[in-house]
Amino acid sequence: MRWTEAKRGILTAEGKPDINVATPPDFGGHEGVWSPEDLFVAAVNGCIMTTFLYYRAKEDIELVSYSSTAEGNLHYGEEGLVFTLVRVKPEVVVASDSDRKKAEQAIQRAESACLVSKSLHTEVIVEPQIQVAREQGRASEA
Amino acid sequence: MRWTEAKRGILTAEGKPDINVATPPDFGGHEGVWSPEDLFVAAVNGCIMTTFLYYRAKEDIELVSYSSTAEGNLHYGEEGLVFTLVRVKPEVVVASDSDRKKAEQAIQRAESACLVSKSLHTEVIVEPQIQVAREQGRASEA
Repeated sequence: MRWTEAKRGILTAEGKPDINVATPPDFGGHEGVWSPEDLFVAAVNGCIMTTFLYYRAKEDIELVSYSSTAEGNLHYGEEGLVFTLVRVKPEVVVASDSDRKKAEQAIQRAESACLVSKSLHTEVIVEPQIQVAREQGRASEA
Repeated sequence: MRWTEAKRGILTAEGKPDINVATPPDFGGHEGVWSPEDLFVAAVNGCIMTTFLYYRAKEDIELVSYSSTAEGNLHYGEEGLVFTLVRVKPEVVVASDSDRKKAEQAIQRAESACLVSKSLHTEVIVEPQIQVAREQGRASEA
């Protein structure tokens, strides 16, 4: 990566799109730019998804959609400011009841196998919502 | 974030540019896309920079350039695959000898204060190279 100006820089990796990064606004930085703190939370969120997708392929789960929000909690303790918790909330839609059971297991396995989570002091909590496509249809008609 | 297809998804955050993410090629994923593992290393790399920039502003260091590479080491242990080490190599160019001394301290302080590093199990090693602009000129003439 390289610094550009003020509290901004550009993350580069060969053959991959550049990512602008900056100190977050709360710490005297810039709006509208990913911060290292955002990337930390995003790495966890992404790792839960890609690890889930590994088990999805292995267990042949018919996946309709997967979206997920993630939020980090910061706490000022003895060591200064650290992330104490990342909460990940995947919303998973699958094709059938049998897929639903397999998806529940796959999310649990992703929670314990995600290599980014395992590399953290921070606690990671995964709170999935798993629905079957036709139920989702009924729910939105309700 | 949301899954798009295969082992890919899109990270979104309100008011910030989308980032495509995918399982890395080594784990059966895709080339040319940031992986959660990349973002983990990038979060550390970025945090060392933004924390340095905090001390830079505080100590009024005249900074000419800052660029930094970072590399993560994975190890397969009892818990499965985890990051055991992230090595960050900042190359810092400052205007004068007095800036150099301040920059050395600022990097050390960034190493211990970076909130992303402090949130990891993974060891983070920072190996800075700090030069004064005119020396850098001499070095490139040599």
